[in-house]
Amino acid sequence: MAVYTDISDEELAGLLADYDLGAAVGFKGVAEGIENSNFLLETEAGRYFLTVYEKRVAPEDLPFFLGLMQWLARRGFPCATPIADREGRLLKTLRGKPCALVSYLSGLSVRRPTAAHCREAGQSLAWLHLAGEGFAMRRENDLGQAAWAPLFSTLKDQAEALKPGLAATIDGDLEKLAAGWPKGLPEGVIHADYFPDNVFFQAQRFVAAFDFYFACTDSYAYDIAVALNAWCFEPGGDFNITAARQLVAGYETRRPLSDAERAALPILAHGAAMRFFLTRLHDWEATPAGALVRPKDPLEYERKLAVHRASPDLVLFGAPA
Amino acid sequence: MAVYTDISDEELAGLLADYDLGAAVGFKGVAEGIENSNFLLETEAGRYFLTVYEKRVAPEDLPFFLGLMQWLARRGFPCATPIADREGRLLKTLRGKPCALVSYLSGLSVRRPTAAHCREAGQSLAWLHLAGEGFAMRRENDLGQAAWAPLFSTLKDQAEALKPGLAATIDGDLEKLAAGWPKGLPEGVIHADYFPDNVFFQAQRFVAAFDFYFACTDSYAYDIAVALNAWCFEPGGDFNITAARQLVAGYETRRPLSDAERAALPILAHGAAMRFFLTRLHDWEATPAGALVRPKDPLEYERKLAVHRASPDLVLFGAPA
Repeated sequence: MAVYTDISDEELAGLLADYDLGAAVGFKGVAEGIENSNFLLETEAGRYFLTVYEKRVAPEDLPFFLGLMQWLARRGFPCATPIADREGRLLKTLRGKPCALVSYLSGLSVRRPTAAHCREAGQSLAWLHLAGEGFAMRRENDLGQAAWAPLFSTLKDQAEALKPGLAATIDGDLEKLAAGWPKGLPEGVIHADYFPDNVFFQAQRFVAAFDFYFACTDSYAYDIAVALNAWCFEPGGDFNITAARQLVAGYETRRPLSDAERAALPILAHGAAMRFFLTRLHDWEATPAGALVRPKDPLEYERKLAVHRASPDLVLFGAPA
Repeated sequence: MAVYTDISDEELAGLLADYDLGAAVGFKGVAEGIENSNFLLETEAGRYFLTVYEKRVAPEDLPFFLGLMQWLARRGFPCATPIADREGRLLKTLRGKPCALVSYLSGLSVRRPTAAHCREAGQSLAWLHLAGEGFAMRRENDLGQAAWAPLFSTLKDQAEALKPGLAATIDGDLEKLAAGWPKGLPEGVIHADYFPDNVFFQAQRFVAAFDFYFACTDSYAYDIAVALNAWCFEPGGDFNITAARQLVAGYETRRPLSDAERAALPILAHGAAMRFFLTRLHDWEATPAGALVRPKDPLEYERKLAVHRASPDLVLFGAPA
């Protein structure tokens, strides 16, 4: 969670003067989103979210993110839609920082997903992939496989501090991932951060997805691999095969996987665990003292890496019965 | 702001099962309130606030605070009202911590109050004082004048670190305040923390007050003195006499001051500045590293203390024209 940027009532009134949404009747910073400052804004016209983009989001990527959200919403996928001002602009500025107004979403994130939630997660992820087809912009995955070794080269001491011997283990993983990383899988727009806290449910059913600020162009199966790591581990660290089966089965109700995509899931899941391990290790060290953020524990993903290292078949549901 | 306590969807559902408010359809931690964790909760029945009381609020004081909010709301004063569960209980428990559901309030806090806002603030504070008459419970002001010298005895090094020589200056202030502190002024329930961030406006008019977690039994004029410090200083540190006149004039439209109350305002304002200086100095040092809180700068109140020390007449509006 984060509320970095403090907005005065005058600044808010100045922003709203560019829209046809009436005056503000409520404005609260919300403890949501790690990368940005988020505010729940109620005006005479309804409820909205105001997101102020902090430095982690590159301003040049914002047209991709906002354009994608608008594209998905117009194709019927339930996600926050950017609201244009009177001149049609989605991207605005507050205190010299880029910001956007987006539609309000109702719903609750689940903290401990059940297998039924995982099925909904898979189904909605396929829906997202299909809805993204035809979106004209492209954004490279700057946290993809090619980025991991260079990123880790700056984090070896931190890895050793976390667990002696870990740097060599990670180096071994990185070599294996580089050698075997699949090429040529079907690709398109992926969410790339499809975690339970970025999805809303109501009455156990998926109602909306949000936080598209890691979205990029990459293989669809990699997005499934991110989700398998995020949704299908028990709090104790065990991989829940039933949950994983439901996630993939839910996905395939809307978009069946090719043999190549299915066969790639183990290494993609190992790689996806690496991606989140590395950024959490980085954030663990780099979070400034004044930040209103609790960085996420890198050990959670260190344990997931160990599971994929030891039993890659698990993700293929090939574990002994 | 603070969101210390993390509530799972199961815990929230368990809490709501005790109420007739339907299921949760939205739940967000909000960046509001320094002492507690606050959540905006939307259920099938409407919008509410869930406050989880963290350790700074003494559990034995909660019946006073919640009872007072209920009393004020029933007497028509616009403030958050605690919502009783099916068995009539206002105070509940989540994760072993006391918590309460209160009604939702619309409105915006002002960051830079104008003289017109100050008039509304004064008027609403008198309304609060009148609405509190007859409330049967009593709570001593544990941050009142008698508490300051003992509190400062633990903070002398911090004061010196802030500004060399400050400890002796504060000791001098404390002696003067102890010697001249007024007795026998009209007293009753006071808010004791009537700052702009605890008051909502809509279209420049007062609409609600909240955050009663410092409320206590003390002199009404002391509450005005707290408000004069909180509302009537310019960001640059100057005391705005016009704003102060409006605050007191607004107050007197509903509750005229006695001569003794008016004469006491300078020393009460000096003391009120001391109270906030001391707690900010304490919090500046004591805020734990993991807290999602930016402590408020004690220097703001050190400067206000200096103003009252140098020109007590200012508060009486007796400055040379």
